[in-house]
Amino acid sequence: MSDPHWEIVASGARLITENWLFRLWSRVYRSRRSGRDHTYYVAELPDCVHVIALTPEPDRRIVLVRQFRAASAEQSLEVPGGLVDPGEDPAAAGVRELLEETGYAGDPPVVLPTYWCNPSLLTAKVTAIVVANAKRISDPQPDSTEELEIELAPASEIPAMVRSGKISHALVAGSLLSWLAFEATG
Amino acid sequence: MSDPHWEIVASGARLITENWLFRLWSRVYRSRRSGRDHTYYVAELPDCVHVIALTPEPDRRIVLVRQFRAASAEQSLEVPGGLVDPGEDPAAAGVRELLEETGYAGDPPVVLPTYWCNPSLLTAKVTAIVVANAKRISDPQPDSTEELEIELAPASEIPAMVRSGKISHALVAGSLLSWLAFEATG
Repeated sequence: MSDPHWEIVASGARLITENWLFRLWSRVYRSRRSGRDHTYYVAELPDCVHVIALTPEPDRRIVLVRQFRAASAEQSLEVPGGLVDPGEDPAAAGVRELLEETGYAGDPPVVLPTYWCNPSLLTAKVTAIVVANAKRISDPQPDSTEELEIELAPASEIPAMVRSGKISHALVAGSLLSWLAFEATG
Repeated sequence: MSDPHWEIVASGARLITENWLFRLWSRVYRSRRSGRDHTYYVAELPDCVHVIALTPEPDRRIVLVRQFRAASAEQSLEVPGGLVDPGEDPAAAGVRELLEETGYAGDPPVVLPTYWCNPSLLTAKVTAIVVANAKRISDPQPDSTEELEIELAPASEIPAMVRSGKISHALVAGSLLSWLAFEATG
C-alpha cells in the first residue's frame, strides 16, 4: 500500500463474510494528512472479461447474450464474458467464455485497456477483448445455472442500443463505447 | 418480479450483513424453465451520479477530482459525483455533489441515460449529467472523510485519458465515453 495519502491499518481488517464468489471486508485506512482513521467496505471479487465478437464483413454482426441478472431482477442484454480465473489471462478467459456461452470463435483477440469495475468497493478489474471474424463452430456449453439466449445484432446499431438503454449494464456499455472510440481513432 | 424466466423464492431471501452503505442479501430465484433454484448474492447499494462539468468555451476544461479508493488502494482520477439520496433526483444530487466537492456550478444539467452499475450483484444505477459553463463560485465543502484534489484538464484530452488508463474507473470512463458519443452525434 504505497498510496501517498492513506496507509492501511492492518489490525483494522475484518472479514465480514465470504462465499464462492467474493470475500467482503471492512478495512481501516489512516489519513497521513489528518491522522484520522476511516473504515471502508471492500469486496474481493474476481476480475471479469467482456468479449466483443464480430461476424465477418460485410455483414458484421455483434454476438450478444441475454440473461437474467439477480440484482436488477430482469433480463440483461450483454456481450458474452465472465469471470477470469485466478492467474488466468483475461484474453484467454474471454475466448473460453465466448466459446462456452455462444459456440463462437474467431481471430486472435485484440485486448482493450483494463479498468477497475468500481475501485471504491470492488477489487475486480474488467478487460474487454475484440474477436473479429467470429463464427459459430460448436454448440454452446453454458454452466448449468446459465440460461442464455444468443442474439446477433448489426454492429452499426451498437451506439443506438447503448443510447436507448437496450443495453443497460454500465460496464458492458462502457466496453462497447471504448471499442467504438478506439475503432474510430485507429 | 415479472421476469419471464426466473421467479423469486421469497422464503429464500437471507440478509447476510448490513451497514450504513449497503445491505447484502442472498436471494433464491427459481427457473421457470428448469424448475431449479439458484442462489444469488445481491447488494442493495444506493444509486450514484457522475458529473461532467465543463468550464466555458473556448477554454473548455473538465473538472476532475482525485481521491483515494479503498478497493483499488490507490488514488483515482474521476469526475465529481456521489451517492443519490433515497428519492432524490439524480440531477439534483449531481449539482449538489459538484458544488460540495469542487465549489463549481454552471448551467442546468443535461441528463444522460441511466444504467445498472453491475446488475448481477448491485442494485445501484448510475446516471451521468453534463454541466456546461461551470465556474467556481465557492469553496469546496467535502465530507470530513473526503480528501479531494481538484484538477482541471482540457476536455479535448478526455479520450486520451480514458485510453491510457489515467482514468481507470470503468464506470467513470463509461460516463465520459457516453458523453463523447452523444456529443459527437448530437
